[in-house]
Amino acid sequence: MDKSDTLSSSLHETDNLGTPLVSISALTLKARELHIDTRKHLMAFIRGDCPLCKSAGFRSETRVNITNKTHSIIATLMVLDSPLLKTGEIGLSNSAWEKLDVQKEENLIVTLAEPLDSFGYVRGKLHGKNLTEANLKTIMTDILEERYSDIQLSSFITACINFTQDETIALAKTMSETGHQLKWLQHPIVDKHCVGGLPGNRTTMIVVPILAAFGLTIPKTSSRAITSPSGTADTMDVIAPVDLSIESMKGVVEKEGGCIIWGGSVDLSPVDDVLVQIERALDLDSMNQLVASVLSKKIAAGSTHVLIDMPIGPTAKVRFQNEAHVLKDLFLKVGEAVGLQLQVVETDGNQPVGRGIGPVLEARDVLSVLRGKKEAPQDLKERSLFLAGNILECWGGVAAGKGLGEAQKILETGLALKKFEAICKAQGGMREPRLSPIKQVVTTNQKGMILDIDNRLISRIAKLAGAPDSPAAGVDLYASLRTPVEKGQPLFTIYAESPGELNYALNYFYNHQNVILIGEKD
Amino acid sequence: MDKSDTLSSSLHETDNLGTPLVSISALTLKARELHIDTRKHLMAFIRGDCPLCKSAGFRSETRVNITNKTHSIIATLMVLDSPLLKTGEIGLSNSAWEKLDVQKEENLIVTLAEPLDSFGYVRGKLHGKNLTEANLKTIMTDILEERYSDIQLSSFITACINFTQDETIALAKTMSETGHQLKWLQHPIVDKHCVGGLPGNRTTMIVVPILAAFGLTIPKTSSRAITSPSGTADTMDVIAPVDLSIESMKGVVEKEGGCIIWGGSVDLSPVDDVLVQIERALDLDSMNQLVASVLSKKIAAGSTHVLIDMPIGPTAKVRFQNEAHVLKDLFLKVGEAVGLQLQVVETDGNQPVGRGIGPVLEARDVLSVLRGKKEAPQDLKERSLFLAGNILECWGGVAAGKGLGEAQKILETGLALKKFEAICKAQGGMREPRLSPIKQVVTTNQKGMILDIDNRLISRIAKLAGAPDSPAAGVDLYASLRTPVEKGQPLFTIYAESPGELNYALNYFYNHQNVILIGEKD
Repeated sequence: MDKSDTLSSSLHETDNLGTPLVSISALTLKARELHIDTRKHLMAFIRGDCPLCKSAGFRSETRVNITNKTHSIIATLMVLDSPLLKTGEIGLSNSAWEKLDVQKEENLIVTLAEPLDSFGYVRGKLHGKNLTEANLKTIMTDILEERYSDIQLSSFITACINFTQDETIALAKTMSETGHQLKWLQHPIVDKHCVGGLPGNRTTMIVVPILAAFGLTIPKTSSRAITSPSGTADTMDVIAPVDLSIESMKGVVEKEGGCIIWGGSVDLSPVDDVLVQIERALDLDSMNQLVASVLSKKIAAGSTHVLIDMPIGPTAKVRFQNEAHVLKDLFLKVGEAVGLQLQVVETDGNQPVGRGIGPVLEARDVLSVLRGKKEAPQDLKERSLFLAGNILECWGGVAAGKGLGEAQKILETGLALKKFEAICKAQGGMREPRLSPIKQVVTTNQKGMILDIDNRLISRIAKLAGAPDSPAAGVDLYASLRTPVEKGQPLFTIYAESPGELNYALNYFYNHQNVILIGEKD
Repeated sequence: MDKSDTLSSSLHETDNLGTPLVSISALTLKARELHIDTRKHLMAFIRGDCPLCKSAGFRSETRVNITNKTHSIIATLMVLDSPLLKTGEIGLSNSAWEKLDVQKEENLIVTLAEPLDSFGYVRGKLHGKNLTEANLKTIMTDILEERYSDIQLSSFITACINFTQDETIALAKTMSETGHQLKWLQHPIVDKHCVGGLPGNRTTMIVVPILAAFGLTIPKTSSRAITSPSGTADTMDVIAPVDLSIESMKGVVEKEGGCIIWGGSVDLSPVDDVLVQIERALDLDSMNQLVASVLSKKIAAGSTHVLIDMPIGPTAKVRFQNEAHVLKDLFLKVGEAVGLQLQVVETDGNQPVGRGIGPVLEARDVLSVLRGKKEAPQDLKERSLFLAGNILECWGGVAAGKGLGEAQKILETGLALKKFEAICKAQGGMREPRLSPIKQVVTTNQKGMILDIDNRLISRIAKLAGAPDSPAAGVDLYASLRTPVEKGQPLFTIYAESPGELNYALNYFYNHQNVILIGEKD
C-alpha cells in the first residue's frame, strides 16, 4: 500500500468533509420537458454520454434526488443514448416537471438518492420484527413525499397483509395524519362505509339523504374505484360535482346536514391514494390495509359514529363467514383503539345490487329508487333502508325496531329525494345520467335456473368495457339468482364508450363461460 | 331497453365472435428505436393522440402485448404528447427492441395484455391459500417470459417470505426447470455454496482447485453479487473469463475436473436472475427464496453432493443461532426432497474474511493464498482448508480427521495453484488483478480495542464506491476484531474507479460512525 498519494482523514473530521463531498457527486443539468406522461411516476432522463454520469454512479433505474430553487424530488432515472437530449440537459416526465414546478431551461441539481432508511423497517417486518407507530410514521412520510419506488410500495403493501392488530392500529393513525383533519362543531358525526366487492352497491347515495333529512350530520367522503368498476365517488360524479374544497364541503354540510363528495378532493389520508395505485395495479386487497385505509379516512374526516356494511358472498370481497368474523373483529378493535364508535353489519353478498354496474348505470338505479319509480331495483332500496334504519336506531334516538319504518317514511314521502336534490345543488348542480348508445345485449341459449353470478367476473367485464374511467361503460344486469331463464333471454347488456372497449369486454366474457352459471332446477 | 340497435349474441357463439374481436382492439404501428436503456424493463412509447388509443383503452402504464412476425412480448406502455414519435409509430426501449428482434420500420401489432391468471395464485397465497407445484410452474413460466411487471415481481418476492416448506421445495424444483439442466457422466458431482453476507469470503476459488487437484469433479457455477459488493463470479471475472457456454464449460471440467464460472452464462435457473434484479433493488433477502435459488441452481447444474457454508454473525446474512437452525433445517429438508446429498456447516460470521472487499481486492487475496504469500490472509486460507477438508472426508473417501491435512498438503505443495492456473487457462486465460490508483485511507483518532465491525455497513461503503460494477472499487480492511489500534492508525482504504464514487462512499462513512466500533479494552 502506497500511503504517499492518499489523503489522510479520521473519524472526527465528519463536519469538515461531510458537506463538500456531496457536491462532487452532483450533476447540474438544464431541465427539458419531454412530454412523457408517466402518471404518478417521477422519472428523469439523462444522456448515457453525460461526462459526470460514470463518476456519480448514475445508471438506468438509479433513484436520484433532483433539486431546483424551490423543490426537491426523488425520481427514477433512465439513460438515453439518442439525440432526444442535448449534452447538459435532463429530461423530465410530466409528473416530475409539475412537482418540481420547473421554469423553462432552469438548472437542476441531480444527486444519488440516499438509501431510504424507512424501507429498512419494512425489511425488518418481513423478517419478523414488528413495526412501531414511529416506524410507520416515517414510512408514511416517505411515501407521501414520493420517496418510495413502485417496487418498494408493492413490497410494503404485500407486507401489510401480515400486520398485527397493533400495527394496523398504528397504520390507521399514521395514515390519518398525512393530510387534512376535519373538525366539526356538531355531534355526533355519523358515517357509513361498505367494504365493497359487490358491484352496483350504491346505498350511500340513498342513505345520506335519508339521514340528513332526518336531521343527523353525515359529511360523507367516498372513494373512487380501487379494483371495482365504480366507487361511490365515481357514481356520484355522474350526477353532481364531487371534487369539493374543504371550505365548500363545510358549506354544503352546514346547509344540508350531509354531502357525498370524493375524499381525495379534501385530501384526507392522501397516502392512501398512493397505496391504492399499486393495489389497483396488483388487483390486491389486504384486510389490514383495508381497515387502516377506511378508518384513517374516518378519523381524518372527524367522524365519531361509523356503520360498516360488510356484504358476504362467495365472490364478494368478504367471501366466508370466518373471514367476516376476522374482519369484523379487526374493524371493532382498531375502531376502539382510535376512538371511534363502530357498528359492523353483515349483509348478503351473493349477487350484485341493483341492475347497473358502472358509474352511469348505477346513478340511474339510485335516482329511480329516490324517485320511487316502479322499475327501481328493490334490493338496492331495501338494503339502503336497512342501513339507514340501523343508524337511526343506534345513533339517531329512534326506538329499537322503529328505524326501518322511519327510514322508509323519509324515502317514500319524497323527503329523501328533496334532500338529495338539495345536496347536489349545494355541491354545484345536478345532472341527469345519460346511457351510451354503444352497447350489446348478451342472451343465453340455455333454458334453466340461474345458479351463480360471479361478482368478480361481472366486475371485470364492466372494467374491461371502460368503467370507471369511461363513466357510461358498464354492465346492465337482468339475471338474478334463483330465477328461471328461457333460451334467447337477455342476461345483461354491456355498455361502452368505444367499440374497441365493447369488443374487448365481450371477448373476455366469451372466454370465461363461468360468469353466469345456468343449470337444472333443483 | 331498445333492442333494435343491438347485436344479439349468445353463449354458443364463442368461436364465431372470439377471433375477430381481438383485432378490433389491436393497433398496428411502425417500430421506432428510441435508444432508451431501461435495462431489463420492456417498455413501449406511443403518442397520446394516436386515434385508436382511446378505443383500445391504452394509457400510461397499461401492460400491452406487442407482436411482430417472429416474437411476442408484454411491455409497459408510456404515453407521449411530444413530437418524439410520428403518427403511426411506436417507440421501444432497447430491451424491447432486442427481445422482439425488430427489423427497422417493421409493423408491430399492439393489444392489451390479458389479465395475468398466474398472479391470481400469488393473490391467493397472500390470502392464505398455499401454492401448488403446478401453480408455481405457471408463475415461473410467466416470469421467465417477462409477463410479470416489476410490482408484481416485488409482490411475489415479498410473498415468498411466508412460503411453507412444501412451497419452497416446489419453488426450487420449478425454478430449476426454467433453463438448461446439465447432465454429467462422472459421479459424484460435488458442489459448495456459501449463503453469504460475509464480505470478502471467496473460499470457492481456493476450494475448487484443491478438490479438483485431489480428483473430485466440481463444475462450480457461481453467482454475481445480489446485494453484496461482489459475488464469486464477479471476483473470478477479474482473473479469468467466467461467461462460458455449456460446451466450453463441459470442456473445462472434462480436462481439469473443475471450473469456476458464472451461472448466468450457462442459463441455469434463469428465472432467478429476474427475481434477483428486484431483490437487489429492494435490498431484500428471503430465506425461502434463498434456499430455492441456491438449490434450483444445484439441481440444474447436475450436482449430487453439496456442502452449504453458513457463516453466522450479528451482521452476516444469518445473524442468530435460531435463524441458522431454521435455515439449516430448510436446506436439509428441501435438499432431501429434491434428491440432493446435503451437508450444512456453520462458520464464524463475525467479521469480513480476508482483507479485500470488492472484485479486484478479493482476487488479490485469493491469489496470495494460492501462491503461499506470507501476507496472505490466514482466515481466508483456514476457512478454505476447513471446507475442502470437510468435503474430502464426506465425499472424497478421506478418513475422518484427515481431510484438513490432505487439503493443506494440496494447497501448500502448490498443486492447488497449478490446478487454479490450469482452470483459468482452460476458461480462456489468466489475468493479474490491478488495484485502482483512486483511493483514500481512513484512519482512526481513537486509541483502543476494535469491538465491532459492521459487515453490512462495510459492504455498503464498498458498493457506494462502485463495487461490483466497477471491479477495482471496494474496501481494503486492516482492522480486525479484538485487536488494539493506536490513534492515527489506518482502519481501511476505500478504492474507487472515479473520484465521485470515492467521495460518495466516504461521505456515507462519515455519516455512519458505527461502521467500526472502537472502545476500551475490557
